[in-house]
Amino acid sequence: MVFDSENREGETDFVIASQFVTPHSIKTMRQDGGGLIFLMISNDVAHRFGLPFLADLYANVNEMYPVLKELVPNDIPYDTKSSFSLYINHRDTFTGITDNDRSLTITKFSELIEKTNNLNSDIAIQKLGQEFRSPGHIPICVASENLLQERKGHTELVISLMQMAGLLPAGSGCEIMGDNGKALSKNDARRYAIQNNLTFIEGKEVMEAWNKWSK
Amino acid sequence: MVFDSENREGETDFVIASQFVTPHSIKTMRQDGGGLIFLMISNDVAHRFGLPFLADLYANVNEMYPVLKELVPNDIPYDTKSSFSLYINHRDTFTGITDNDRSLTITKFSELIEKTNNLNSDIAIQKLGQEFRSPGHIPICVASENLLQERKGHTELVISLMQMAGLLPAGSGCEIMGDNGKALSKNDARRYAIQNNLTFIEGKEVMEAWNKWSK
Repeated sequence: MVFDSENREGETDFVIASQFVTPHSIKTMRQDGGGLIFLMISNDVAHRFGLPFLADLYANVNEMYPVLKELVPNDIPYDTKSSFSLYINHRDTFTGITDNDRSLTITKFSELIEKTNNLNSDIAIQKLGQEFRSPGHIPICVASENLLQERKGHTELVISLMQMAGLLPAGSGCEIMGDNGKALSKNDARRYAIQNNLTFIEGKEVMEAWNKWSK
Repeated sequence: MVFDSENREGETDFVIASQFVTPHSIKTMRQDGGGLIFLMISNDVAHRFGLPFLADLYANVNEMYPVLKELVPNDIPYDTKSSFSLYINHRDTFTGITDNDRSLTITKFSELIEKTNNLNSDIAIQKLGQEFRSPGHIPICVASENLLQERKGHTELVISLMQMAGLLPAGSGCEIMGDNGKALSKNDARRYAIQNNLTFIEGKEVMEAWNKWSK
């Protein structure tokens, strides 16, 4: 699926439900997209696994690491807050970056969401650590607690889509680059989607559907 | 330059001195490489800017964030230690991920190394924060203090090369992917380099040159 984000004017993204990711989808995203391939999860899942926003973690330890005080991300042009959490690799990966490795990290994470559905947080965190290490090569982005009511970023749009589709609350994606040093334009992204038999969705369509669905 | 790393069997990388990076080099790396585009710096530069290894930072704050205790990267198959430090964006970037944005982050970082050469660490850290924010999209990898005597990773090989060439101690690169879900093989990387008029260097050649040069 190709996607037009709401809060980052002019940016388009690949999006795929994490449970359906394969090495081939990673290859398509890196070759035709070219941005950072990331994992998006719901706020609930982040809580279950004790996964912090990196910006919060950095703010909490910036007495110990003064550089974090200076690097504070208080001027992100499209947003009030960075949604990055930790970067992870599955422990069975080698470098963590090949198509096979990134696919493994993403699909295993999505499987673990399902397996830990009814477990308490302490156990879920242990199970996460049995399978994954950090630092790694897959950045996790965490959706706002109140989803689209709070923030209209790609993470919230994607998690809303997963909810409406009845899928696990984990999406994967990457930004699509143009040939001119910038992001691919919305029109070019639409053209790419048609040529490659992919669905093109605009952020505002997700918003409309979600407003109806969440009533 | 295309590069065969020493400690990660079967992995090949793009490498370019950070001071010479352009949006076009980012585009080449993401299209023909496909891995994570990163910045490699000397241990001295990391000290000057107070940039920690993420694994050390995580170990220091894992009482506050128990998930970090579980995710500890104690089983990296090719290494004893992760060389990842923070991920940064230049404050003048928008998303941070386009070819223009990543090129800006990398070249401005390399300029700042030169500008802060004779400054003390407190001032250097402030200057870093005036120009950059974290979290961001360019991971910084930090070379071991004793370079190739301590670790034979791509970061150490690249920083040794920069030293021998009299360039700023900052390199950029990304892993090169094959079509089979794995890293590009050494032979295919050599062929790619020849076809594209790039230099192909093996890690062991850098080691030999550095052993002579550092005497």
